Amino acid sequence: MFRKQLVGHIFGKKSFLCVGLDPELSKLPSPIPRTAAGILTFNKAIVDATRDLCVAYKPNLAFYEALGPAGWEVLSETIAYIGSEHLVIADAKRGDIGNTGRLYAEAFFQQMGAGAVTVAPYMGRDSVEPFLQYEGKWAVVLGLTSNAGSADFQQQTGSDGTPLWETVIRQCQAWGTPENLMFVVGATHPEAFARVRQLAPDHFLLVPGVGAQGGDLAAICRHGLNSEVGLLVNASRSILYASGGGDFAEKAREEAGAMRDGMAEVILGLGV
Amino acid sequence: MFRKQLVGHIFGKKSFLCVGLDPELSKLPSPIPRTAAGILTFNKAIVDATRDLCVAYKPNLAFYEALGPAGWEVLSETIAYIGSEHLVIADAKRGDIGNTGRLYAEAFFQQMGAGAVTVAPYMGRDSVEPFLQYEGKWAVVLGLTSNAGSADFQQQTGSDGTPLWETVIRQCQAWGTPENLMFVVGATHPEAFARVRQLAPDHFLLVPGVGAQGGDLAAICRHGLNSEVGLLVNASRSILYASGGGDFAEKAREEAGAMRDGMAEVILGLGV
Repeated sequence: MFRKQLVGHIFGKKSFLCVGLDPELSKLPSPIPRTAAGILTFNKAIVDATRDLCVAYKPNLAFYEALGPAGWEVLSETIAYIGSEHLVIADAKRGDIGNTGRLYAEAFFQQMGAGAVTVAPYMGRDSVEPFLQYEGKWAVVLGLTSNAGSADFQQQTGSDGTPLWETVIRQCQAWGTPENLMFVVGATHPEAFARVRQLAPDHFLLVPGVGAQGGDLAAICRHGLNSEVGLLVNASRSILYASGGGDFAEKAREEAGAMRDGMAEVILGLGV
Repeated sequence: MFRKQLVGHIFGKKSFLCVGLDPELSKLPSPIPRTAAGILTFNKAIVDATRDLCVAYKPNLAFYEALGPAGWEVLSETIAYIGSEHLVIADAKRGDIGNTGRLYAEAFFQQMGAGAVTVAPYMGRDSVEPFLQYEGKWAVVLGLTSNAGSADFQQQTGSDGTPLWETVIRQCQAWGTPENLMFVVGATHPEAFARVRQLAPDHFLLVPGVGAQGGDLAAICRHGLNSEVGLLVNASRSILYASGGGDFAEKAREEAGAMRDGMAEVILGLGV
């Protein structure tokens, strides 16, 4: 999906919600069989319940790989079911040397039909670039992640006085553009968004950590918005497991709707 | 595989060779059909040709993911075919927040039967620890990789004057032990091995970049060996594609044999 289309969906739906499709067998609602086929049923129900409320879906690969080969089938079928009106972000956190990275890009963009892949930057330029070679596809590079471990290396200060995550966000902009490169910035660091916007005023940011991880939407928007919104805010567990019973899809819709309503207010406040 | 077993295999076989199982459809030797089934046939032939010459196999996940769901079947069957006498390192470069990382560990260690997984350290402690929770299994954390992009972030100097890769190797030792944690150090940085051994005298190092990428075995051994060898040197393309014809397995064996002979000399030189 090209940037222009993505921005069009955001303003059209008054939403910058991304729904994380992270289905775990042990957490499936009671009416759903705890099998790979059950996960596909669950994903389809969640997609049907949230389609008009969100602009993106983000399946995290770990949840599918844990199912073995069947998981890849479930993921492919889920992506096909979502269709072309949403950005599908394969949350795979891949990154490998050039000739290998090209195969990952092929796997996700061509075989699987994803529109974006999350990429770990540790291996540098030749590990990121293979994901920047496809028209209308995105590399979403990890900047400052939402987890406690982000303190271990990402927040370490370099000899130039800036933390590693800032160096990553600055450096990657030499490799990609706001048309094919986004950054992950976790909602658990609301104070960082002002600095991110100094470094990368135009790039879209993928923001995990709202919902179960405790991030605050208003605080993020205060500093993170740009004139094209520029944010995709992800929620996974809080939507998927809003209810463990037969009303799980309805409750997921309520939860997603509440987030969308908050986002609609924010977008109206932009006065665009 | 426990460390003691691994060291036993190394001294028994006089080899610390790891064969990278990175099969590409477009590079398969002429007699092999260019299909997922062909890749399994190819892998089995390579394993049969090298089994007594190496102590580990390292399939890189990208080459299997590029085949779609069939790739996961091929990988599972390859790992089962290898059996329990070799360490199987799933070169997946995974890394995600704690609850997700646990699923990756489950996928590779339990579902797929790998003995080790390569892990990207960017997300910190909670992304590495899930791979350290299995008896006799290994996390192989990226330290200093063999590619050009290793200059971009890994070699950036921190405010304490040390490059990021050194901080990673130092820091990770607080989370794992020489029994469950290895580091990746690329053969293209022979000058770094002396420093690595100051930081991590006992840990095994997985060394890619010998062969097609040009690393020099003697230089690595000079500084990288410890009393239990402590190195697993990987070669992929130089062995897999030693011949494009019907004699590919024989030529692969010759190539692996030449590497093993060099290693045997090194091990005899240790005088253990």
